[in-house]
Amino acid sequence: MTKGQLDTYLASRRREIDAALGRFLGPAAGRPASLTRAMRYAVLGPGKRLRPVLALAAAEAVAGPRGRRQALGPGCAIEMVHAYSLAHDDLPAMDDDDMRRGRPSLHVKFDEATAILAGDALLTDAFALVTGLARRAPASRVLGVVREIAGAAGSTGMVGGQIEDLAQQGRARGRIAVVRRIHDRKTGALLRASVRVGAVAAGADVRALRYLTAYGEAFGLAFQIADDILDEVADVRTLGKPGGGDREAGKATYPAVLGLEGARAEVHRVAAQGLRAIARFGTRAAPLDALLRHVVDRAA
Amino acid sequence: MTKGQLDTYLASRRREIDAALGRFLGPAAGRPASLTRAMRYAVLGPGKRLRPVLALAAAEAVAGPRGRRQALGPGCAIEMVHAYSLAHDDLPAMDDDDMRRGRPSLHVKFDEATAILAGDALLTDAFALVTGLARRAPASRVLGVVREIAGAAGSTGMVGGQIEDLAQQGRARGRIAVVRRIHDRKTGALLRASVRVGAVAAGADVRALRYLTAYGEAFGLAFQIADDILDEVADVRTLGKPGGGDREAGKATYPAVLGLEGARAEVHRVAAQGLRAIARFGTRAAPLDALLRHVVDRAA
Repeated sequence: MTKGQLDTYLASRRREIDAALGRFLGPAAGRPASLTRAMRYAVLGPGKRLRPVLALAAAEAVAGPRGRRQALGPGCAIEMVHAYSLAHDDLPAMDDDDMRRGRPSLHVKFDEATAILAGDALLTDAFALVTGLARRAPASRVLGVVREIAGAAGSTGMVGGQIEDLAQQGRARGRIAVVRRIHDRKTGALLRASVRVGAVAAGADVRALRYLTAYGEAFGLAFQIADDILDEVADVRTLGKPGGGDREAGKATYPAVLGLEGARAEVHRVAAQGLRAIARFGTRAAPLDALLRHVVDRAA
Repeated sequence: MTKGQLDTYLASRRREIDAALGRFLGPAAGRPASLTRAMRYAVLGPGKRLRPVLALAAAEAVAGPRGRRQALGPGCAIEMVHAYSLAHDDLPAMDDDDMRRGRPSLHVKFDEATAILAGDALLTDAFALVTGLARRAPASRVLGVVREIAGAAGSTGMVGGQIEDLAQQGRARGRIAVVRRIHDRKTGALLRASVRVGAVAAGADVRALRYLTAYGEAFGLAFQIADDILDEVADVRTLGKPGGGDREAGKATYPAVLGLEGARAEVHRVAAQGLRAIARFGTRAAPLDALLRHVVDRAA
């Protein structure tokens, strides 16, 4: 897939995902209008929709267009979980970020109570969305999707990573093993789950799921190292903040430990593993392949 | 069931529930110890465990002791969801309560960030707990439990009720219809779901589920009216706050609209409906029967 083909693919998938999210978050009997507005603001603003795109692409690798349709609901549920986590992370008691994706963050646009509750609602409704899919899919498969999301987002996944991240802040330069463990849960777990949820929703067998899990693992890690590299080399214009900020803040980053070139080599090494894992799916995995190569390009 | 028999029943069920909650919230690989401590503090403190008790009692009505064992996990999941909602409701941005059940509330004992995240983790892990039950129960039944909890707790249930409750505060005396709608979602939905989850977990058929739903509906409403009555008549010693506080705060309460005797008559009328709904289960429903009669006695 060329860069142009990937862009076309992404634009088309994002349209599909945003339309579905708009439906799932439409007015609902018994949901106060102010809550609906806050939930939509948190989810439907600008964003790459990377997680649902990964879910759709993984489902396509397993079962083509039929798989993609089956993964649309689960992918949207993951995006709602992602949006909830950003809304809560931005709260004054947490990272205290006033801006998110170039707009006021949720608690600034509305208020703190609404931001907490809209986050709670997005997390809970994500599970309600998934259970609604049982009308068209086997219960065991739908339950598998619930299990993936709950496992990746809960106390041993995303929330655990965020607690440890807050505890690390302000400490002397952390060890790379600690940073890797935090990011593995805080970011990696949900990226991996996005791929796995798409695969499970499309009915992947044990073997296919194992290969796609290896891809998801590699994707999450490459994504994180690339982010560290971007932070190191980007100038103010690109990221909107001074480069190297993470390193100056005393966080252990991959470039700080491996050097810039070492970190780039690590992205290549990890990505190569991920690409090998999906080679067996042939052209059906072309979008997954292009998505991971795109992460490598960002780090170059 | 006499009062003494009910007390013995409650004590025995609470022991069973607390032991199970202690296991579910034991140390877990990948969960930071500070998060485990906060989650246990939120769930395992003093408390009536009313919601899991209702789940167990409903399951007993459907399938005796076997049903009760099947409802233990789902009942604990509901208690975790209840504990998360209390932790978030107590936050400074919400009801700003420093005390809960005679102890410092979660954000006072730990800090705000921990209280938000421990709440998030309890909600998410409740779903993980339920999916883990699929090893021993049919997937469709386990999925039914997930659906009940997500529906009762989400944007059209508990969270929606809390948003509307916050919006009502400080307004002139609300209409009874509004208050009833808020409480129906904020408190009633999860009580009703507790009964339904127990029934579903024990394999209730459509008819049994309908009768138990009517019971759960009646229980939630009677519970709320009894609470209003208690608030109206209790002195400082009993409730730890001046009686009639809700009415003075401008909230529409049942006694304010119906008068004290009218409200008591309403509790009797609603409870009688609930008791009729479960008569067909015979002695297996004795605990459900005694629990609802206990609510009526509290209001006397």
